[in-house]
Amino acid sequence: MAILRKKIDIQSDPNTGFGVNSENSRGRFYNRTTGSANVVKRGVNVLNRYSWYHTMLAMPRAKFLLFLLMAYIIVNLFFAGIYYMIGIDHLAGVHQGSVVKNFTEVFFFSAQTFTTVGYGRISPVGFLASSVSTFEAFLGLLSFALATGLFYGRFSRPRAFLSFSHNALIAPYKGGAALMFRMAPYKNNLLSEAEVKINLAMQIEENGKMMNRFYNLDLEISKINALALSWTIVHPIDEKSPLYNFNYTDMINAKIEALVFVKAFDEVFSNTVVQRFSYIASEIIWGARFKIMYHADNQKDRTILDLNKLNDYEKVELLSPVAAQ
Amino acid sequence: MAILRKKIDIQSDPNTGFGVNSENSRGRFYNRTTGSANVVKRGVNVLNRYSWYHTMLAMPRAKFLLFLLMAYIIVNLFFAGIYYMIGIDHLAGVHQGSVVKNFTEVFFFSAQTFTTVGYGRISPVGFLASSVSTFEAFLGLLSFALATGLFYGRFSRPRAFLSFSHNALIAPYKGGAALMFRMAPYKNNLLSEAEVKINLAMQIEENGKMMNRFYNLDLEISKINALALSWTIVHPIDEKSPLYNFNYTDMINAKIEALVFVKAFDEVFSNTVVQRFSYIASEIIWGARFKIMYHADNQKDRTILDLNKLNDYEKVELLSPVAAQ
Amino acid sequence: MAILRKKIDIQSDPNTGFGVNSENSRGRFYNRTTGSANVVKRGVNVLNRYSWYHTMLAMPRAKFLLFLLMAYIIVNLFFAGIYYMIGIDHLAGVHQGSVVKNFTEVFFFSAQTFTTVGYGRISPVGFLASSVSTFEAFLGLLSFALATGLFYGRFSRPRAFLSFSHNALIAPYKGGAALMFRMAPYKNNLLSEAEVKINLAMQIEENGKMMNRFYNLDLEISKINALALSWTIVHPIDEKSPLYNFNYTDMINAKIEALVFVKAFDEVFSNTVVQRFSYIASEIIWGARFKIMYHADNQKDRTILDLNKLNDYEKVELLSPVAAQ
Amino acid sequence: MAILRKKIDIQSDPNTGFGVNSENSRGRFYNRTTGSANVVKRGVNVLNRYSWYHTMLAMPRAKFLLFLLMAYIIVNLFFAGIYYMIGIDHLAGVHQGSVVKNFTEVFFFSAQTFTTVGYGRISPVGFLASSVSTFEAFLGLLSFALATGLFYGRFSRPRAFLSFSHNALIAPYKGGAALMFRMAPYKNNLLSEAEVKINLAMQIEENGKMMNRFYNLDLEISKINALALSWTIVHPIDEKSPLYNFNYTDMINAKIEALVFVKAFDEVFSNTVVQRFSYIASEIIWGARFKIMYHADNQKDRTILDLNKLNDYEKVELLSPVAAQ
Repeated sequence: MAILRKKIDIQSDPNTGFGVNSENSRGRFYNRTTGSANVVKRGVNVLNRYSWYHTMLAMPRAKFLLFLLMAYIIVNLFFAGIYYMIGIDHLAGVHQGSVVKNFTEVFFFSAQTFTTVGYGRISPVGFLASSVSTFEAFLGLLSFALATGLFYGRFSRPRAFLSFSHNALIAPYKGGAALMFRMAPYKNNLLSEAEVKINLAMQIEENGKMMNRFYNLDLEISKINALALSWTIVHPIDEKSPLYNFNYTDMINAKIEALVFVKAFDEVFSNTVVQRFSYIASEIIWGARFKIMYHADNQKDRTILDLNKLNDYEKVELLSPVAAQ
Repeated sequence: MAILRKKIDIQSDPNTGFGVNSENSRGRFYNRTTGSANVVKRGVNVLNRYSWYHTMLAMPRAKFLLFLLMAYIIVNLFFAGIYYMIGIDHLAGVHQGSVVKNFTEVFFFSAQTFTTVGYGRISPVGFLASSVSTFEAFLGLLSFALATGLFYGRFSRPRAFLSFSHNALIAPYKGGAALMFRMAPYKNNLLSEAEVKINLAMQIEENGKMMNRFYNLDLEISKINALALSWTIVHPIDEKSPLYNFNYTDMINAKIEALVFVKAFDEVFSNTVVQRFSYIASEIIWGARFKIMYHADNQKDRTILDLNKLNDYEKVELLSPVAAQ
Repeated sequence: MAILRKKIDIQSDPNTGFGVNSENSRGRFYNRTTGSANVVKRGVNVLNRYSWYHTMLAMPRAKFLLFLLMAYIIVNLFFAGIYYMIGIDHLAGVHQGSVVKNFTEVFFFSAQTFTTVGYGRISPVGFLASSVSTFEAFLGLLSFALATGLFYGRFSRPRAFLSFSHNALIAPYKGGAALMFRMAPYKNNLLSEAEVKINLAMQIEENGKMMNRFYNLDLEISKINALALSWTIVHPIDEKSPLYNFNYTDMINAKIEALVFVKAFDEVFSNTVVQRFSYIASEIIWGARFKIMYHADNQKDRTILDLNKLNDYEKVELLSPVAAQ
Repeated sequence: MAILRKKIDIQSDPNTGFGVNSENSRGRFYNRTTGSANVVKRGVNVLNRYSWYHTMLAMPRAKFLLFLLMAYIIVNLFFAGIYYMIGIDHLAGVHQGSVVKNFTEVFFFSAQTFTTVGYGRISPVGFLASSVSTFEAFLGLLSFALATGLFYGRFSRPRAFLSFSHNALIAPYKGGAALMFRMAPYKNNLLSEAEVKINLAMQIEENGKMMNRFYNLDLEISKINALALSWTIVHPIDEKSPLYNFNYTDMINAKIEALVFVKAFDEVFSNTVVQRFSYIASEIIWGARFKIMYHADNQKDRTILDLNKLNDYEKVELLSPVAAQ
């Protein structure tokens, strides 16, 4: 394999936090959609394995709202059951009827208690029913206190809201070539002091064993004052690059993955935000360059950033042979 | 044009995040009032384009409160409509009358449910009306949970609360001249470790093409321990300055814009805060110096900072010719 | 004056944020209790001068609770007035009586609406009273949303909870002397990576004019890994110290003030916290050393930190003359 | 004792924040479970000694919920007492009976007021009962505002969620030996830019007095980009190590304690998190190495991290004598 014919002289980075033994740790390192590491944990019981708050924060909005609604219905079914067992006579004002009708009445009484709306048409009489409703109203308020916290936690959670180009390119650059990709903020947030790090993972045979190696890629510009427009990240493929003398087949064989880590300061949240992304070999276009994605709006004296064009590129001939066979 | 007669030898800063091609990116870079970049995004649908939380945080207070009130009325009109369609007979205690009166009654019942005030004069009877009111009370509590989060998010949002002098000045400085402006905190917050960066944008013709160039300006003092009084930022116009040998016409022709970025630690919020501001050529006074804006209050043994004087300057002759024609 | 007989050769620090002209800026720089700068702002109207959220956060607890209670009563008096003007007939269930009794009834109805307790004995009838109560319930919920945010903002506000020794000492140190003071955390919080900066302010006559000069004091140790016990900050008075060759009278004449700034990471809040303190000449004891304030508890195998001893010192003879007359 | 036969030439670290005199400060420095310093504070009264918010945050979940429930019951007992003293006649709708039954009724009325459920079967009549219930509803809402803040504070509190191996090992390393231990994140949080510092505490006799000395240990890798898998921290025991030439008895005699401090950025909380841990001599295994704790899941193309194996090690012969007798 191509990767065995060459020697990569540059120093690999031991600080990535991923395992070096390819037997034990293989495949894509980052999940492309979520940016989280492709690691499964064993040996922790379910209760400890998840931070339920992290889970609640990461849950899609619709699922989160449905979860709340389900919890609301289940809690009320539970309390309705208790009131029903205590006996419908302990709830004054119930319009009695069939079993179903009676259960429906106590269910609605439960909901009116849990939400503290307490119309009062139905009201508890006697120690048992009163005690349960006293506890339910307390539980209701605490539940909504919790929901308040979750809502706030969800929407105040600082996120970078960055879109990445679908492909990375091997593009012409100063008489040679460079690995490039670009990103742009897609919401009305304001990022400053953005900083990007790229770590290139590859599998190399060392002493007859497949090893994972990680290389920090030098970037033309790795810090930017304000991330107002799109930002094209450029890694020049020169002698100091682990991709030097690689061709497309080498990239595929070495199963390279460019691990992207972006850190910035969000000026609305006043907080640091981070985002991860990754490109594997098959997502890298050999010989292409990005088309410009912004232009001036003359009337409005503003710059237009067209996010539809984020991944727009044109195929080009590389000026010099990047990889010698 | 003047700008073509001179060569700026110092290194421009490629890390500003703004485009270098003047054809594509022109006009004022920062919006002066909000400090945000003059960029419009296209190609994202409305739902994804805005972080509604960012929007809610940035909305003026009156507009925000009006928005809440409107939402409250609309939600109640909606639920009133549903109750009305279910039939007014399913709400016990309604004082029936004309269509308008009936609708009014269900509207108020809806409001009493949504806010969970639940007086109980009107109360739902039967499965449908009870179900809707059960859901409405739930929705009401979640809405106020959301409002709680928004309120907190709004007033706990760390902001710098800095006022900037309306004008920047070209003022006498150590036998030469310097670009100066000043700022002062106008609220009872306490900023420490304040840091300022100025980036000077200008349009220069290079190879027959108008390019945007950005230069980091050296400052006499760029960090300050505590921002207790006003702070005058001073950029000496010496050989290392991109403004060296400029005259007023050059500034106008080069469409210069001084992009100001302030970062500080707010001791009440215990958080980093940032603020942006910018001065374009027409906002720079040629030959002026700021008047002192604080004085001692002898009785009280305190320093008085008069924010009305933030922009007070007097015209002066520049000691040496800054710009040779 | 003594201060004129000597020349301080070391570089003063221009980055303090305080004015250098003693005519305009004099007296104690930091307020000793709050640690805030002794500056009064003018020229901002009352609405803009205060961040009401900052004010609410900084308010003592009792005052804050009283403020809430007062606001609650005033709001209810206001709405009671409106209901009374609409007419008591529009509130069903009111036990009518004297003017006072009637007003009391509407006041309580208002409170029941504002808190959404809504017993329902009294309930609004007709468009006007219902509309007002609909709005009041809405306002009530928003008010408590606001209160929730304030409560959370108050108790989640990261603070350093540090006690400082009442006096700073000029103590024997390595055959010479050093300026020392100490501090200790007094609550069950955990501070790590604590960092201290001291800035010495003094008034010096330069060219016949009294100027404020500020000097960064070199510290024996300025960073500490964990602030678990007390921490004695030591500034050796050697040739590099602005206090070199000073005697007690010099300190008084120069109106010195040691401005202390502490920054640390609180591990419970997971946030940076800062605190300020200052010592003026009359608070500095000439020739004393601190007594040790912690000891081992043999049974418990723990260290006992006695905060009562924070300021305990004993008078000592300085080993060498620090100040030559 | 062994510790007296050798001279440790390397520089000790004076910045740990712990006392150097072993008479005054001895025993384990860090509490192993909580990671907090083994220090007891005296001389602060109970009200000031604890930050109740810190206490509430650190309290176990079950205890916290029980605390809230108890507070709810006590508050209602208190108000029930007041209503009972005012007289049960001032509460319309009470089903009167025995003293116990009456008290039960006012207790439930109190709960219905405090939670603002306000069914209205029982409602206050007259100035006194109405006033008290007005205040109670107000107090109720504030209490739940407080609870909301506490809930949010508790679950939004950034924590590292790291598990440490129970033992540290003296393991073979590059022909010599190294002190090693490992850690792994056990929840679904994502830590980046993790950084570890180890400080080695030991007791040494100096001038006939037992002193605490602290040494920063050099680490093979002290920063890691992403803490996705387990991380083995390695301190090579070479000439620069304070453990150089130590044997097991020396470690015990010197009462060494390795103080571990981890700092990382949590990408879900978007906040810095820290965690502390420590190993004393008896928790260090002489001559052992860790077994690998992760492997590839071929089907799923993911890495499996088995947290049960966190402390799995095998005894090995050290390759060279670490300690000479």
